[in-house]
Amino acid sequence: MDRFVQAVPPPADPYAGDPFLRSWLDRILGPAGHAAAKDRLSALAADVVGTLRAAHADAEAHPPTLIRYEPWGARVDRIETSAGWQAQRAAAARHAVVALPYLPDSRATWGAAARVVQHALLHLYGPESATFSCPVAMADGAAALLSRPEVDPAVREAWLPRLVATDPATAVTSGQWMTESQGGSDLSRSSTVASLVDGRWRLTGEKWFCSAADSAMAVALARPDGAGPGSRVLAPFLIPRYGPDGATTAPGIRVHRLKDKLGTRALPTAEIGLDGAAALPLGDPAGPGGLTRAMTLVVVTRLHNAAAAAGGMRRGLQYALAFAAGRTVAGGPLSRSPLHRATLGTLAVDAAGAFALAAHAFALLGRVEVGADPYAAAELRIVAPLAKLVTGKLAVASASEYVESFGGAGYVEDTGVPRLLRDAQVLPIWEGTTNVLALDALRATVRDDAAVPLLARLDAAQDIARASHPPCPTSSPTPPPRCGPTWPT
Amino acid sequence: MDRFVQAVPPPADPYAGDPFLRSWLDRILGPAGHAAAKDRLSALAADVVGTLRAAHADAEAHPPTLIRYEPWGARVDRIETSAGWQAQRAAAARHAVVALPYLPDSRATWGAAARVVQHALLHLYGPESATFSCPVAMADGAAALLSRPEVDPAVREAWLPRLVATDPATAVTSGQWMTESQGGSDLSRSSTVASLVDGRWRLTGEKWFCSAADSAMAVALARPDGAGPGSRVLAPFLIPRYGPDGATTAPGIRVHRLKDKLGTRALPTAEIGLDGAAALPLGDPAGPGGLTRAMTLVVVTRLHNAAAAAGGMRRGLQYALAFAAGRTVAGGPLSRSPLHRATLGTLAVDAAGAFALAAHAFALLGRVEVGADPYAAAELRIVAPLAKLVTGKLAVASASEYVESFGGAGYVEDTGVPRLLRDAQVLPIWEGTTNVLALDALRATVRDDAAVPLLARLDAAQDIARASHPPCPTSSPTPPPRCGPTWPT
Amino acid sequence: MDRFVQAVPPPADPYAGDPFLRSWLDRILGPAGHAAAKDRLSALAADVVGTLRAAHADAEAHPPTLIRYEPWGARVDRIETSAGWQAQRAAAARHAVVALPYLPDSRATWGAAARVVQHALLHLYGPESATFSCPVAMADGAAALLSRPEVDPAVREAWLPRLVATDPATAVTSGQWMTESQGGSDLSRSSTVASLVDGRWRLTGEKWFCSAADSAMAVALARPDGAGPGSRVLAPFLIPRYGPDGATTAPGIRVHRLKDKLGTRALPTAEIGLDGAAALPLGDPAGPGGLTRAMTLVVVTRLHNAAAAAGGMRRGLQYALAFAAGRTVAGGPLSRSPLHRATLGTLAVDAAGAFALAAHAFALLGRVEVGADPYAAAELRIVAPLAKLVTGKLAVASASEYVESFGGAGYVEDTGVPRLLRDAQVLPIWEGTTNVLALDALRATVRDDAAVPLLARLDAAQDIARASHPPCPTSSPTPPPRCGPTWPT
Amino acid sequence: MDRFVQAVPPPADPYAGDPFLRSWLDRILGPAGHAAAKDRLSALAADVVGTLRAAHADAEAHPPTLIRYEPWGARVDRIETSAGWQAQRAAAARHAVVALPYLPDSRATWGAAARVVQHALLHLYGPESATFSCPVAMADGAAALLSRPEVDPAVREAWLPRLVATDPATAVTSGQWMTESQGGSDLSRSSTVASLVDGRWRLTGEKWFCSAADSAMAVALARPDGAGPGSRVLAPFLIPRYGPDGATTAPGIRVHRLKDKLGTRALPTAEIGLDGAAALPLGDPAGPGGLTRAMTLVVVTRLHNAAAAAGGMRRGLQYALAFAAGRTVAGGPLSRSPLHRATLGTLAVDAAGAFALAAHAFALLGRVEVGADPYAAAELRIVAPLAKLVTGKLAVASASEYVESFGGAGYVEDTGVPRLLRDAQVLPIWEGTTNVLALDALRATVRDDAAVPLLARLDAAQDIARASHPPCPTSSPTPPPRCGPTWPT
Repeated sequence: MDRFVQAVPPPADPYAGDPFLRSWLDRILGPAGHAAAKDRLSALAADVVGTLRAAHADAEAHPPTLIRYEPWGARVDRIETSAGWQAQRAAAARHAVVALPYLPDSRATWGAAARVVQHALLHLYGPESATFSCPVAMADGAAALLSRPEVDPAVREAWLPRLVATDPATAVTSGQWMTESQGGSDLSRSSTVASLVDGRWRLTGEKWFCSAADSAMAVALARPDGAGPGSRVLAPFLIPRYGPDGATTAPGIRVHRLKDKLGTRALPTAEIGLDGAAALPLGDPAGPGGLTRAMTLVVVTRLHNAAAAAGGMRRGLQYALAFAAGRTVAGGPLSRSPLHRATLGTLAVDAAGAFALAAHAFALLGRVEVGADPYAAAELRIVAPLAKLVTGKLAVASASEYVESFGGAGYVEDTGVPRLLRDAQVLPIWEGTTNVLALDALRATVRDDAAVPLLARLDAAQDIARASHPPCPTSSPTPPPRCGPTWPT
Repeated sequence: MDRFVQAVPPPADPYAGDPFLRSWLDRILGPAGHAAAKDRLSALAADVVGTLRAAHADAEAHPPTLIRYEPWGARVDRIETSAGWQAQRAAAARHAVVALPYLPDSRATWGAAARVVQHALLHLYGPESATFSCPVAMADGAAALLSRPEVDPAVREAWLPRLVATDPATAVTSGQWMTESQGGSDLSRSSTVASLVDGRWRLTGEKWFCSAADSAMAVALARPDGAGPGSRVLAPFLIPRYGPDGATTAPGIRVHRLKDKLGTRALPTAEIGLDGAAALPLGDPAGPGGLTRAMTLVVVTRLHNAAAAAGGMRRGLQYALAFAAGRTVAGGPLSRSPLHRATLGTLAVDAAGAFALAAHAFALLGRVEVGADPYAAAELRIVAPLAKLVTGKLAVASASEYVESFGGAGYVEDTGVPRLLRDAQVLPIWEGTTNVLALDALRATVRDDAAVPLLARLDAAQDIARASHPPCPTSSPTPPPRCGPTWPT
Repeated sequence: MDRFVQAVPPPADPYAGDPFLRSWLDRILGPAGHAAAKDRLSALAADVVGTLRAAHADAEAHPPTLIRYEPWGARVDRIETSAGWQAQRAAAARHAVVALPYLPDSRATWGAAARVVQHALLHLYGPESATFSCPVAMADGAAALLSRPEVDPAVREAWLPRLVATDPATAVTSGQWMTESQGGSDLSRSSTVASLVDGRWRLTGEKWFCSAADSAMAVALARPDGAGPGSRVLAPFLIPRYGPDGATTAPGIRVHRLKDKLGTRALPTAEIGLDGAAALPLGDPAGPGGLTRAMTLVVVTRLHNAAAAAGGMRRGLQYALAFAAGRTVAGGPLSRSPLHRATLGTLAVDAAGAFALAAHAFALLGRVEVGADPYAAAELRIVAPLAKLVTGKLAVASASEYVESFGGAGYVEDTGVPRLLRDAQVLPIWEGTTNVLALDALRATVRDDAAVPLLARLDAAQDIARASHPPCPTSSPTPPPRCGPTWPT
Repeated sequence: MDRFVQAVPPPADPYAGDPFLRSWLDRILGPAGHAAAKDRLSALAADVVGTLRAAHADAEAHPPTLIRYEPWGARVDRIETSAGWQAQRAAAARHAVVALPYLPDSRATWGAAARVVQHALLHLYGPESATFSCPVAMADGAAALLSRPEVDPAVREAWLPRLVATDPATAVTSGQWMTESQGGSDLSRSSTVASLVDGRWRLTGEKWFCSAADSAMAVALARPDGAGPGSRVLAPFLIPRYGPDGATTAPGIRVHRLKDKLGTRALPTAEIGLDGAAALPLGDPAGPGGLTRAMTLVVVTRLHNAAAAAGGMRRGLQYALAFAAGRTVAGGPLSRSPLHRATLGTLAVDAAGAFALAAHAFALLGRVEVGADPYAAAELRIVAPLAKLVTGKLAVASASEYVESFGGAGYVEDTGVPRLLRDAQVLPIWEGTTNVLALDALRATVRDDAAVPLLARLDAAQDIARASHPPCPTSSPTPPPRCGPTWPT
């Protein structure tokens, strides 16, 4: 007997089909700025609904494997990834998802807003990238760190061009080998040691949660030999992951195992042992400011985390809308059910809010980078943790709602819906849990008085809102159009 | 180089280690009633932290597989399950997790509160049962349905004793073959047809989401031949899953595939095709009230769903507490971090609330079953959907917090933490999503005026709360102890 | 502590490194004929040791999977194969492994000996093709069948050009849906029926062992509606595997399951059900000679089977030689151990013999096809089964010796050695077991007097051997060089 | 459409259904001796066709896995095996498959022939033991080694009773950690070193092929600190695999990986690193004769290898007979096809020969152990390698024939037929390849003049054969019954 088969159209082109994104770019970039970005955005969106959607599915279906030994017994610690993962890697390079703000003519075209354009690229690229968005984030963070003046120009010259290359043949990404088993987010307990041996730095220690462990390089934190306790003396190093042939695991690096994670399954995350692994210092390890330099990277990855949250929420919304349009319930399309509309409406508001928050943080980063705005750095100081914190929480709650909105089908892996939740759950954890970030924001507020620019912006926003929307009369059953809530004063 | 290895003590005995549960039972059952249940509860809890914990792990590690064909080509549709799953099955029978309220001396000992004792058993059994709690729920629902007077005594005699057997050799569970691909929760679209052929009922149709598909029987909804459209005419049938040998798939039943689910991975959930499968009517298929009879079952499974939510939340809390006690952060145990304490405290309140709500619903069910309380049926009518709805949502939100509370380790499958979230997510979906249940509660309120007993109970609870806790002064920075919120009147 | 790691050089270029093959081609093709083939052979050999070796490993590591259902429930019966398998498919087309004897200028260049050149290509291609040599064989067989004059030109035009295409974008291969569960090699028990419905032939029945089930077409045997019992009335049909989109399984075709085979693991072999599947007759189904037409195909595939045996033996020998050269035993290389040399020497003789037998059979086929030699058809009639039979047995016995020659390493899958045995074992089974072929050869001898040309050839060979090698004196402990065994007269 | 399903009865009780075995035991043990063994043999055979057949299938379907790390990061190197493997382990103990010749009353009942009874047990047990026959063999070898007078009584008392226990709760088996990557069968290259540290021996080195790596102990060869090169100075040690809790890997032992083998898939075979692992000397490591002591073990395991070969051949024959009886070809059962009968007849002769050879070797071992026969030791010296060598080769060749005798079904794993070949192939490799054993036999003949007793036995056998069977007339087309070949003189 034949079964009914629910038709579910694939989600539409994420650029052409997203008026909110387009109006946002018009507003922030201006019509000319948006027009200058349009070809890039269209091309990426076309690839997403084209080959990248299949590459995403392939990468999710074929997670990485760790080959510890060759047939004849040599320990090799080779991570094998799928063809889909490789395709995502190439697309990230080709579409300049990392490189855009570093491209020479980007600043000429968009100035500080090059980061806004990059964020739009991330918004399109991330949700169907099989979380290649993660190595993208860390490559961007590493590029930002390598761009700092304290970094030895020879190191910068050797690695920065590859991190921001748009040719897939030369482009590389970066891992991040920070946390250790005993410490987690408490970096003060880090016990990896950096020693200078015959003029070369060598790292020895055990790293516990190393994502994108197949990347060509990693940024690692280590305690320089002889430095005291605490986290302030930790210094960032660049570890080349492979030997001179670009394929063999470098001496002194051992990949103990890959993590079997709830989500981000295409992404190889490893426990890595270092035993005298060669490393390049990023700034003077003995000098001050090591942790501050590392924070350059972390601010960037936290912003990417917010972008991933917003992108995932948009993707969930699109999928849920497509399903609701095709599904018939109680004699009509599910999309006409008042209660279901209310549910999706709330989710759409959350998705728009998450996007706006992430986009604003990228805009701030751009302004900080070009030095355009004296308040931007202070605002970013507090917006980075808050944007990461809020969007991470929203992403999980929304993903759970999207799963539920498909009924039983949302709970079955081959629809692709459960992945929304599994992947979202990493967002409030990676680069600082909600509580860690809350404490960070508290420190910023109390110690650095960093809340002032943000509060000023909120006040201004409230004034604008109040001016344009009269308060809704509380007694009227049908409020007049475009009224707003009564703002407390 | 040796790595630090985080010590994480296994969660304690869930009965001995849960003062809230014990004080609850004292209060509801009275000291004598609780004492009468103590041996059962202790024995089950001892098994949970003993062999069942290992059985749970084994069942999760070895999900069921579907053997479609024998080596020589015969189609067999055999579902193979792990030794751990079989151990859980035996334990459920031995500990009377289904049977308790049906045991002759239970009513004598506890009267209506036999359901309260059963709920306590479920609270202990469920979270480490590899979701064998699901077939348990459906067996209980089927037993309740078979207990109805409309059911042919011959059918009841043949199956009810096996559903409530405590001997693992004879005990069986039940599946539930309700939803169809085109309908989901909208039963009016059901197209499975029941026909009377040579005096035997035969079902033909396609069932889409059939959990516990390895059970000895299933309850299926079908439209009797010649009945009109809509859901009211649907009638429940009992389908024997196996042939007379108890092992071979019965003729006319085909298991198309097992669902690859986000969670509840040890539980075999299948898409099942029926092509003239033999079935036993549960009540007169041609007469009225078929759907009402089926609702007897659904009320029971919804209550089990609430119990599963509460049990899972308690389990997540215990695990997070164990981790926080062992984990050192910033120079002290994580369990002393104020922010982390606040997080876990909120979660503990939610867990207690979910338990109380589920327990109250079971208590109501007991009262309805013994006919002790004229208001109980009306209150249960609205409490069943609301308890299921609220605890399902709480379970997911809490599970996500538990995952986050472990940091990165919460995202790695072998710690067992991700399963908390994966399994929780089924709770707001199965047996009616939040919106479906909200509409059901609305119908109950509007059509049946069913809110009255519940509102009366809430008023009474408020009075008690107000009497025992003075309102907290709004201006005081440090409120006096044991004050409460100001209740609106 | 570091372990010793045995160095095992990869086997050399199978053309440049095989003087026996080159001298054979010189002898059979003449220097000019060999020179004309050299570029093709070198190019294929370079690909084999280049990208195809990796493609082979990838295809072996990622066997095909059957996707029965799409996420939303539609039955699709899609066979997913690896990137390596696709690369092998493309290489087979590009290097004309099937097409060579069908290319217009092949006959001009090599005449009948085009089949000799093809055999040399197969010898290079087969052993590291992840058994893509199997669809290659069946595509060649199907091409030979489609070339017969009885076939409707429209059918030939539609499919033959694709079977012999050298452009990977258009080239296709063929499966073979012959055997049925009840019959195996006893075709008289075939119960698949071909019916003419509205002017189109439709096949209904159950096929049991269908290799290369992902091919674009298959040749199937069926009993035309109304034909009597026995095998003589069976007729060959071409079944398009996919619908008009080239990707969706055609209506009436169901892939029940993939076989989990001892070897040839990259090759999708399926049990296939036909329920009115559209088919194109290859010759008049109602007329006589259906089985004879099908035998055109089978003769070709049996020759390919012999080629696969010879190729596999050469590959095993090369690998064993490489290992023996690198391995140190008792103070010297294993390759200098007299007993090991004797073992490998015997195996080398067997490998050369198998090659010569297969090559001779291909040469005969070429002569039959160009009509050059009146005796060739009779000789091929008996050489085809004998060559298949003998090389199949030799291939298994040799493979077992190769496994043993590596010691324990030969028993471990990741060295690639066990595959030699696993794959070889199909050779004495597929297309007729040894006993089936022995009976076929017996029939050919007794019924058709087909032994005469072969016996004449053997007599001539013996005369030549006797003339060039004096008998070795039986008493002498050290026989003079180039003496031979005493031939019985 | 329904398919034909070939009925294949499961092979019969291997004791009741094997008249050859029973007549052999009558002849060797005498009627009384056989009667004394009958209950043991019947009980084991009943278990084989009962629960052990299912345990075998379970163990083959669920190969062992290596858990390197616990969730929280501790390296544990735990090998997890299936329930079926555990059931085989228990059955081996309960049926005294190792213990029989060591049981106090065995020698009283059967004297030297206790080994004959053991061999009959092995013949029944081995083929459906999922190769638990391998740890059985090594436990027997270890028990024989521990029985030698040179072994410290304290060590013997600690371990021998457990090796020959019949209570599954206390019985253990042994692994064998001999070969190293660089040496293989050439023990002179062994580089594992034994050092005396604070009065305890500790082993350091890398072992390459360690079967039954889950056993409670292993026998390892090592070079005592300060001993010279060559194999003669190597000494056997007993390594406790687990710590005092019997479950945790002992310090200094690391399981690098499990081998992915062609066959014997239920058997965990590992690469093991030793880094100061505690060990107990088996005899004085500094004194002479270490390798000779180790050979006590190897003689026993070679005999077990021959027994496994013979048992596997009997199993293959039984299965092929069952298939041929049920299969219809060309209008009659396959078992009536003359050519198929001839094939199976030859295989039956080989199976009987292999059994007789293995049984004779066990009988010799028994005689050597009780010191009954001055020639027995010399004969065993040459029969052990020859019996192992010949039966190993026969086992592979026969298994390949059995695979072929099932046609395509023989090539498909779920019929269980391919396993016959995969498992057989280990037999000519393990404990010395054919060439290694041939050289050993040659050494025995040349150096030790060990061929004399065997040649005398062969002469005697020939005389008996000649006396009882007149030579067959060469000219007669139908030879008279019970004639034999003309023996060369």
